[in-house]
Amino acid sequence: MPFSLPIAIDAMGGDKAPEAVIQGARLVLKEFPQARFIFFGREPVIAPLIARNRVLARASEVVHAETVIAMDEKPSVAMRQGRDSSMRAAINAVGDGRACAMVSAGNTGALMAIAKLVMKTLPGIQRPAITASVPSRHRPVVMLDMGANLECSSENLVQFAIMGDAYARAINGMAAPKIGLLNVGSEEMKGHEEVKEAHRMLRTGQYPIQYHGFVEGHDIFEGTVDVVVTDGFTGNIAIKTAEGLSREIYGTLRSAIERSTMAKIGYLFARSTVRKALRRFDPRKLNGAILLGLNGIAVKSHGGADAKSFANAIKVAISMVENRVNEKIIAELERVKPETTATVVPITADI
Amino acid sequence: MPFSLPIAIDAMGGDKAPEAVIQGARLVLKEFPQARFIFFGREPVIAPLIARNRVLARASEVVHAETVIAMDEKPSVAMRQGRDSSMRAAINAVGDGRACAMVSAGNTGALMAIAKLVMKTLPGIQRPAITASVPSRHRPVVMLDMGANLECSSENLVQFAIMGDAYARAINGMAAPKIGLLNVGSEEMKGHEEVKEAHRMLRTGQYPIQYHGFVEGHDIFEGTVDVVVTDGFTGNIAIKTAEGLSREIYGTLRSAIERSTMAKIGYLFARSTVRKALRRFDPRKLNGAILLGLNGIAVKSHGGADAKSFANAIKVAISMVENRVNEKIIAELERVKPETTATVVPITADI
Repeated sequence: MPFSLPIAIDAMGGDKAPEAVIQGARLVLKEFPQARFIFFGREPVIAPLIARNRVLARASEVVHAETVIAMDEKPSVAMRQGRDSSMRAAINAVGDGRACAMVSAGNTGALMAIAKLVMKTLPGIQRPAITASVPSRHRPVVMLDMGANLECSSENLVQFAIMGDAYARAINGMAAPKIGLLNVGSEEMKGHEEVKEAHRMLRTGQYPIQYHGFVEGHDIFEGTVDVVVTDGFTGNIAIKTAEGLSREIYGTLRSAIERSTMAKIGYLFARSTVRKALRRFDPRKLNGAILLGLNGIAVKSHGGADAKSFANAIKVAISMVENRVNEKIIAELERVKPETTATVVPITADI
Repeated sequence: MPFSLPIAIDAMGGDKAPEAVIQGARLVLKEFPQARFIFFGREPVIAPLIARNRVLARASEVVHAETVIAMDEKPSVAMRQGRDSSMRAAINAVGDGRACAMVSAGNTGALMAIAKLVMKTLPGIQRPAITASVPSRHRPVVMLDMGANLECSSENLVQFAIMGDAYARAINGMAAPKIGLLNVGSEEMKGHEEVKEAHRMLRTGQYPIQYHGFVEGHDIFEGTVDVVVTDGFTGNIAIKTAEGLSREIYGTLRSAIERSTMAKIGYLFARSTVRKALRRFDPRKLNGAILLGLNGIAVKSHGGADAKSFANAIKVAISMVENRVNEKIIAELERVKPETTATVVPITADI
């Protein structure tokens, strides 16, 4: 189903903004000609870039925003001082209904803080979680939280499980996604209290999800489950460790092959096979982390995203809109309401 | 310098015990003919396996132990009921001075609990940490804790930094190892309280180490620092995630190449280069995690270790002995004693 509302774009966020951001939007239009964009940022800089492409110009609107939130700005400072920033303006556009989703490659902490302030969370959700797909043996695996909440209560983890389930159904098209809770072992007695309590809660069967049980680090890429739930500290470090390792392995192989004539000849024969095999590990195809649990759609692109990569982040936003993921999360939470109201209490140890 | 005291070996621990364990010891003898072993386990099973090799038989002694601690046994149960187990007997041999180190591929939690009970910790160390080397761009990187302490105070993390420093100097031969603290970002304000407080303490300069600051997941394999310090929950998940990913990448490549004749031909040319390049990522070469901080030497081998892999775990034990790592940790702690006594307090929130 085509969507009629435009996507708000923070044109200034990210290392390669605004060029990569604008080129990314142009790439999206090829696949989704019905898409519309509102670009927020310094008009004198971005308007000429957009005007270069007639198709893009016709689908776009530019709204001037004077400032840009720096990548290393403290979220609390960005919330107070970033009122005339491109990021804040793009978030506000979702808040007041001018846009149906927003995308930014800017400061993650600021995006989270401002989006939570403006959009609020979905009813029944205490905290949004940064959610993304990672490659696995068979199909993409949904992982959350990737870094929004450094410490999580058992209730937070249970809510992440329900949100991840709705996301995997809607975005990855799974009928009954298997949900796993990341831990240091798969045995009952392992882990710290929060993870053990979340495990006990999820095992009761009162939640309308397929709970698999504990999973370990290696299960993520083996595709043991379809959704991996963890706290933001662990999730962030696990995924950055994986990114670093894959870069090291590729880098080591590439430079070794470049140094050897024999290997270079061999690579000529194997190249197309190798490229095709490794395509699903291409991080650009998986760019776009959704701040799941907000009462609105905000997508975070990697800060270093190129045009192709940023285009994927926009596509994640479009999928969120088209598949009505937030409505589905609300519906799932409604189904467990009698049991969960007792556990959904405000957290005092908020960090 | 050759060592004169024997290594106690839990002959029954691990998925491939006792065969892989005994064959591993035989491999070590080729490199260290002066090594001596005491094997603990079911004598009727292990004695004939050892007798098969005359050189090994001459260097070995067998002590019968009736039971084996199961891989999924709860550590607390293993502590109470495993008194006549091969693991307990091997640990006791270090405790009463018959052996200078012990190695086991058995249950990690049980090994940690029993070794801590029997050997106690080094003076000034609250908790031992599972410590191991991982490959990086330039050289192996020391990482701790890999899973002994699921929740760590800032004092624990500071002590891990000091232990990791001594280990990197003694085992990896580094003059001034750079120490990093694993976090979700490298900026000052990021992370939870324990990691921020440990950062503040390490930055004071009162500890005799080269503190680099915060590092992120991708820094581990990039070799940004020589020692990566983290809590056991995060460390365990990060390293298992990395293991899983590297298996997936290799597996994907291997099966793609096997399915294509062109790629198979290409691989014939590139094989020796590729193998040589990836050798440093061979997990077998890095097997052997030391339970650092114990007043004695206990090395944990991977449960699935083959002979070559188990041999590496024994070599880690030998290095610990030859390089007097524990004495060096004590000496480093002595140097900071005036400042640290204030912070080294018993932890009430012990998990």
